[in-house]
Amino acid sequence: MRRLLVVGIGPGNPEQITIEAINALNRADALFIPEKGADKADLADLRREIVARYVTGAGRLVPFAMPVRDETTASYAARVADWHQTIAAIHARLIAEELEEDGTGAFLVWGDPSLYDSTLRILARVKEIGAPPFEVAVIPGITSLQALTAAHAIPLNRVGEPVLVTTGRRLAGAPIGTDTVVMLDGQLAFKALEGEDYDIHWGAYLGTPDEVLVSGRLSDVAEDIERRRAEARSRHGWIMDTYLLRRRAGA
Amino acid sequence: MRRLLVVGIGPGNPEQITIEAINALNRADALFIPEKGADKADLADLRREIVARYVTGAGRLVPFAMPVRDETTASYAARVADWHQTIAAIHARLIAEELEEDGTGAFLVWGDPSLYDSTLRILARVKEIGAPPFEVAVIPGITSLQALTAAHAIPLNRVGEPVLVTTGRRLAGAPIGTDTVVMLDGQLAFKALEGEDYDIHWGAYLGTPDEVLVSGRLSDVAEDIERRRAEARSRHGWIMDTYLLRRRAGA
Repeated sequence: MRRLLVVGIGPGNPEQITIEAINALNRADALFIPEKGADKADLADLRREIVARYVTGAGRLVPFAMPVRDETTASYAARVADWHQTIAAIHARLIAEELEEDGTGAFLVWGDPSLYDSTLRILARVKEIGAPPFEVAVIPGITSLQALTAAHAIPLNRVGEPVLVTTGRRLAGAPIGTDTVVMLDGQLAFKALEGEDYDIHWGAYLGTPDEVLVSGRLSDVAEDIERRRAEARSRHGWIMDTYLLRRRAGA
Repeated sequence: MRRLLVVGIGPGNPEQITIEAINALNRADALFIPEKGADKADLADLRREIVARYVTGAGRLVPFAMPVRDETTASYAARVADWHQTIAAIHARLIAEELEEDGTGAFLVWGDPSLYDSTLRILARVKEIGAPPFEVAVIPGITSLQALTAAHAIPLNRVGEPVLVTTGRRLAGAPIGTDTVVMLDGQLAFKALEGEDYDIHWGAYLGTPDEVLVSGRLSDVAEDIERRRAEARSRHGWIMDTYLLRRRAGA
C-alpha cells in the first residue's frame, strides 16, 4: 500500500525541526512541494533551505501548483470546503502518478499538521474521491504558538489554568477570561478588546531572521503592533503572526 | 553573565527532539539533571538515552535531587508555591556553584517549557532570592498534545474552530462545547461527562515503546481506557497520559 507522511517542519527556523521529521523526509520516495506563487516566496525559500539542509535520501522533489481559494464564495465554510476539494483532486493525482504501489510520499507542513492545517482533512477527502489506497502517518512539529512563548521566554498557561487556542475570526472582540492564543488573525481582533485589561505577547515571522516581538499591556502596545505589522507586511508581501492575551490580575 | 537554556526535549520519543534543542544541549557547560527517585525510573532512563544519543559536547552532567511536593499542605496553590520555592533555592545553588560567571547551564524539560511546566516560573523565583545574575533562553519542544494528535493521525481543531487546553482538575465534569485537550488528569475527569455526547482520543506514554492509544465514542471506550490505564500504571509505577474530547455533532 502507498504510504503518506504528513511531516511537521516547524514554524520557519530550520533548526526547529525534529530528528523524526528529518528521518521521515529521508524515507520518502517523493516530497510534494506546493508552489503558491510569488507572494510567499520567503516561505518557499525557507522550505527549500530545509530540504537542502536535511534531505540526503533519494526522494524526488515533486512540485505542484497550489490552487487559490475562491474568495467570491460567500460562506466561509463553503469557500474552505470547495478549496479543499480542489486540492484533494490534485493530491489524488500526485498519489496515483508519482508513487509506486508501495511508495512513500511526504507532505511538508509548516508548524504541526494538527493545528490549523488542512492536510489531514484533505487526505480524508482524497480517500473519498477514489485515489489508490494509502495509509497516513503524522510526524509532529513545533508550532508558531511554541515559537511565540519560547521567543518571549514565557509560560503559555498560568499554574493549573487552561489556555484557549483560537482564531481572530472567533475572538471577534469578545472579552476573555481564559488566557488565549490567537492565530490566523488578519483583522487584528485584539483592537476591539478593552486594552487596559490585558497583556499581549505578539510575534511575527517567528523563528526566522525577520522575527518581530512586542510584549506589554495591550493599551500601551496595540498601536505599536499595528504599525510594525503593517510595515513588515508591506515589506515582505505577507505576514504570519500570532499572539497570547492574558487578562491582567484585577481586570 | 550566566546563561540558562530551558530546553524542550519532547514527550519521550528520543527522535522527537529538534536540531535546535540538540545544539543547545551541546552548547551547555552543565546539564542539570533532576533525580526524582525510583518511581519514574523509565523517564530517567529516557532522559539518559537522549543525552547519550545527542550530547557530544563538553557539557558536564550535574544531577540534583528533586524535592517532593508536600501533599499535606491543604491549598493547591500554596502547595505548588512552597514546592517551587524549595526548587528555586536548589537552582540558585546550581547556578552559583556549577557555572562560571559566563557559563551556560541547560535544564532538560519534557515536552515544551511553556506548557504545564514550572521551570520558567521557578527561574523567576530564583532571580528574586538573589542568585548571581543570569539570562534565560527557551528552546521549544514537541508537547504530548502534538504527540497525541500525531499518533491518532487527527487534527487538533476543527476548521476555524477553537481548542481549549486544560487540566483534569479544571474540567471537573462540566459539559464542554469547545474541543478540549485534558492534561494532568489523575482522576479521569471524563467519567463525569455524558459519554454519548463526546468522542475521545486518549494516549499514554506517547512517543515511547509503551505507547497506548484508545479512540472512540466516550460511552463506548471510557471503561476500556480506565482499565488499560490502571493496568499500565500498575506495571510502570507511573503514567503520563492526555486526551482530546470532541463534542459529537448533534449532541
